[in-house]
Amino acid sequence: MTEQNGGTGKVTSTDVAQRAGVSQSAVSRVFTPGASVSKKMAARVHEAADALGYRPNVLARSLITGRSRIIGLVVAYLDNPFYPDALEKLSAALQEKGYHILIFLAGNSRDHVDEVDEVVQNLMDYQVDGIITASINLSGELTDRCRAAGLPVLLFNRGIEGSGLSAVTSANRVGGAMVADALLDAGHRRIATISGWLGASTGRDRRDGFVAALKARGAAVHAEADGMFKREIAAEAARTMMASAQPPDAIFVGNDHMALAVMDTLRFEMGVDVPGEVSIIGYDDVPMAAWPSYNLTTLRQPVNRMVEAAVRTLLAEIETGRTPGTRVEIEGELIRRASARLSPLG
Amino acid sequence: MTEQNGGTGKVTSTDVAQRAGVSQSAVSRVFTPGASVSKKMAARVHEAADALGYRPNVLARSLITGRSRIIGLVVAYLDNPFYPDALEKLSAALQEKGYHILIFLAGNSRDHVDEVDEVVQNLMDYQVDGIITASINLSGELTDRCRAAGLPVLLFNRGIEGSGLSAVTSANRVGGAMVADALLDAGHRRIATISGWLGASTGRDRRDGFVAALKARGAAVHAEADGMFKREIAAEAARTMMASAQPPDAIFVGNDHMALAVMDTLRFEMGVDVPGEVSIIGYDDVPMAAWPSYNLTTLRQPVNRMVEAAVRTLLAEIETGRTPGTRVEIEGELIRRASARLSPLG
Repeated sequence: MTEQNGGTGKVTSTDVAQRAGVSQSAVSRVFTPGASVSKKMAARVHEAADALGYRPNVLARSLITGRSRIIGLVVAYLDNPFYPDALEKLSAALQEKGYHILIFLAGNSRDHVDEVDEVVQNLMDYQVDGIITASINLSGELTDRCRAAGLPVLLFNRGIEGSGLSAVTSANRVGGAMVADALLDAGHRRIATISGWLGASTGRDRRDGFVAALKARGAAVHAEADGMFKREIAAEAARTMMASAQPPDAIFVGNDHMALAVMDTLRFEMGVDVPGEVSIIGYDDVPMAAWPSYNLTTLRQPVNRMVEAAVRTLLAEIETGRTPGTRVEIEGELIRRASARLSPLG
Repeated sequence: MTEQNGGTGKVTSTDVAQRAGVSQSAVSRVFTPGASVSKKMAARVHEAADALGYRPNVLARSLITGRSRIIGLVVAYLDNPFYPDALEKLSAALQEKGYHILIFLAGNSRDHVDEVDEVVQNLMDYQVDGIITASINLSGELTDRCRAAGLPVLLFNRGIEGSGLSAVTSANRVGGAMVADALLDAGHRRIATISGWLGASTGRDRRDGFVAALKARGAAVHAEADGMFKREIAAEAARTMMASAQPPDAIFVGNDHMALAVMDTLRFEMGVDVPGEVSIIGYDDVPMAAWPSYNLTTLRQPVNRMVEAAVRTLLAEIETGRTPGTRVEIEGELIRRASARLSPLG
């Protein structure tokens, strides 16, 4: 086992308590992130700890307190730039509360539900205090196991109906409807969509909200394809749509990651003018959407507020031991840039 | 503490050993990733474990074996797309060996060396088996502490001279020289560079190799600025260079993240033709470099080989308990796309 204090001998919390003239439980509280302790007490204990070269051992403490201060994060991929951004923000917010993220990569959700289950079982072995999943699906069996174990699970950017697990998403149906309304208001006539994967709530809800809003105003979706959240599949769908006898004059793409690929395919491969011939609207507002080469009009996911809600919800479940299955939806905003012909506001 | 087996009672490794008719240490080996065990033995133990609903407790085991199977990763930021890609690949490679990454965000290296030290101390509290750092600097004091504690530290994509810590980078000086040679071969006359941060070995080595190669062929660097690995600072440097009386006819930018911002600034803000008026070459080959809007010529960092070397080096140090300070440099390759006027090969 590694020696934590550079060979000066094993210093225990009792040593620190003695030197600081406080109880051992006070020392323990000072080194437990989030525990209640006065500033004066903290200063006194830290001074003694520094003088002795004391470092608390989080893992040993976890066996006593039942808290590892570790949140397991299960993700399938990080190539969609929405996820690294969310991961950085989730890490920062959890770290501030004294937790850290342990990463588990799971097979891509489309084919590998079994592998995801295996990964989550492996993750439970690390005695994580809670789990956040992003960009993956969990089987019903697995969600049952987590519930039976009382292990809080938060689904980030995806919900699973009837799973009883907490979920934080943007208001995807509302967002899809906002895109439809903006395109109709600007007089588009042949409005298509290349959705996110319809096997995921996020892809489905954006698409359903979009199609329902068109219908509510007497319009029908002109063409439709499932982009599967993959750049290459979305690009291929765009090729097919634009090569048809009646190409669309607007395409709502289910996330920016795909929308940027669609724009490049239309412009550089097919010589199609965006937005002159076809308006493109994405979903997310990833950093690249604002880059001048794209200037993508998109429905912004309020990632800061989603992260805040996720951390608040998960930590409440960890602290109370109750997992009520909270569902948080946060409304987004249409960011008007240059990839779609839209009517001026107001 | 959470119950790991859905309320069926606490099953121990002894129960599993009894049912499987093997020793307890055999059960322990089966559930220790990387430990030597026959396929037959593994099957027998897994069958018994499944029947009883046994889940090994990694953290409790770590107190016995001295191994947590956790690698701490310290990063400053994930906005440069090179890092999410590397993180995904590092995670996958470590996971295959039975390790997982625990993320620690540290303050940006340019201003916050103290904060990085604090984070690494916090990280040692988790009894990590090793540390990987990326995009941050460690103070001399901290590196001394890790060495004293016998804790393996691997610097990914950055070296610290004289630190005695292991490091894996691409051959940055050689890469810079390859860019200089390609630009000279194509007849460029006013060759500039917007380097990565010169306070980091990666920024410095690429720049120094580039300038030395120009000099070796009797050329001097026409203009130079430190882009600090920041998009906005690099864009501002490009504005200044191109507005001068003698603008460069080629700019080597210290990473792709900055190079893409430079291209957008030149094209969309200043109306400069890339590569007609100025050739741009980046470094990394991030996914966006290949997107048709950019088609960036760049020196590819062989990220798969860098990850493989990093995992091999770090795990060897963990397993042997020796930290010799291995330095691995992997040569990159010039990827010729459309952002630079280069001579045909051969």
